[in-house]
Amino acid sequence: MADASHPAERAVVLLSGGLDSYTAAALVRAEGHALFALTVRYGQVHAQEMAAARRVAAALGVERHQELSVDLAALGGSALTGDGAVPKDRELDGDGIPPTYVPARNTVLLSLALAWAEVLGAGALVIGVNAVDYSGYPDCRPEYIAAFERLAALATKAGVEGGRFRIHAPLLAMTKADIIRRGQAVGLDYGITLSCYDPAPAGAPCRRCDSCRLRARGFADAGLVDPLDLR
Amino acid sequence: MADASHPAERAVVLLSGGLDSYTAAALVRAEGHALFALTVRYGQVHAQEMAAARRVAAALGVERHQELSVDLAALGGSALTGDGAVPKDRELDGDGIPPTYVPARNTVLLSLALAWAEVLGAGALVIGVNAVDYSGYPDCRPEYIAAFERLAALATKAGVEGGRFRIHAPLLAMTKADIIRRGQAVGLDYGITLSCYDPAPAGAPCRRCDSCRLRARGFADAGLVDPLDLR
Repeated sequence: MADASHPAERAVVLLSGGLDSYTAAALVRAEGHALFALTVRYGQVHAQEMAAARRVAAALGVERHQELSVDLAALGGSALTGDGAVPKDRELDGDGIPPTYVPARNTVLLSLALAWAEVLGAGALVIGVNAVDYSGYPDCRPEYIAAFERLAALATKAGVEGGRFRIHAPLLAMTKADIIRRGQAVGLDYGITLSCYDPAPAGAPCRRCDSCRLRARGFADAGLVDPLDLR
Repeated sequence: MADASHPAERAVVLLSGGLDSYTAAALVRAEGHALFALTVRYGQVHAQEMAAARRVAAALGVERHQELSVDLAALGGSALTGDGAVPKDRELDGDGIPPTYVPARNTVLLSLALAWAEVLGAGALVIGVNAVDYSGYPDCRPEYIAAFERLAALATKAGVEGGRFRIHAPLLAMTKADIIRRGQAVGLDYGITLSCYDPAPAGAPCRRCDSCRLRARGFADAGLVDPLDLR
């Protein structure tokens, strides 16, 4: 943790309200970073994600929680922003990229995080992507994260003046079960999170979309009970 | 130009309403691309830029003109989004990066263009940056553009499936005078554009900000008269 003589390095964390970004943020906080949470409404069909993000930001005790809107739904091209139905009961671990892929989403999110990081003087960006138990999205892979880090150095005043932006993706090589075990071990309450792509209006998860099913499999593999199942 | 047997490759062009993006779009259109214009309101202090972008899109005869909003002003850090005054009568060609720099702006703009390009099946992104007579922004340099192109291949479903996004920055190595000569030679009406960082409420340019002064110097060096000066 930071002490008064060495102020904590600031980190901008992309916080979605799901369990991955919550866990990634907690791990980076444990390394001594001061957290600045950024939640982007990009036209997801469900607004409950924002309520979950606010709960998570409060639980993490972030320095600040900034919300931004950008209407990717206007561009179309994803079931996650209302263009077609969210698939249910789909085979997990298939080869294809599913219709819930949002074109260039993580590039948009990281570019906004980079903009805020530069303003804040933050040297770290945190994203909860993982490339093991994931949905096959291209912008969750290690080579993508490395390419964004190279871009960030050239994209910014801070970068060309010799500063550096590091992208922290601490979950990249973890399975969903690893993530859940690790988070519960440090006391995270996953009961405040929302992973579902298609929740009921009151926020209850559908339990049939890829995200719900990956989450259920993760808890099962970890030998733990999802607190959402106790409600 | 495209013929019926070979449909034109689609290009997403970032259109600001200024003369650079207008010229870049016209040059790419002349190569046979079908233009899809994207104008992003990112919290510029002046809204007249949007009106100018609409005039330019109409003059170019684009297939579609999409407007998107993302409130970078909420993040602060730039005179261009209301954080401090736009500098006037500043020495041009200085070394520093001026306060009108918007943190990570071109990364945000290109990421949104990339998102739309992927949805449209467009292989080209067009941006009117130039690295000769410019304001010293890091994200207008050739190495930055090349890094974004590399990122785009890894960031998208289209990219990982073997497609490619090419960033067209046809003005990159041109002086402002070259740009103006070239544009006027192909009949572009710069009287519909707006370059000023700090226009009067009715849209009249201030003539004292960096952007106005670079434009004036460009017309003078080209030996041409700015149509805005005739009004």
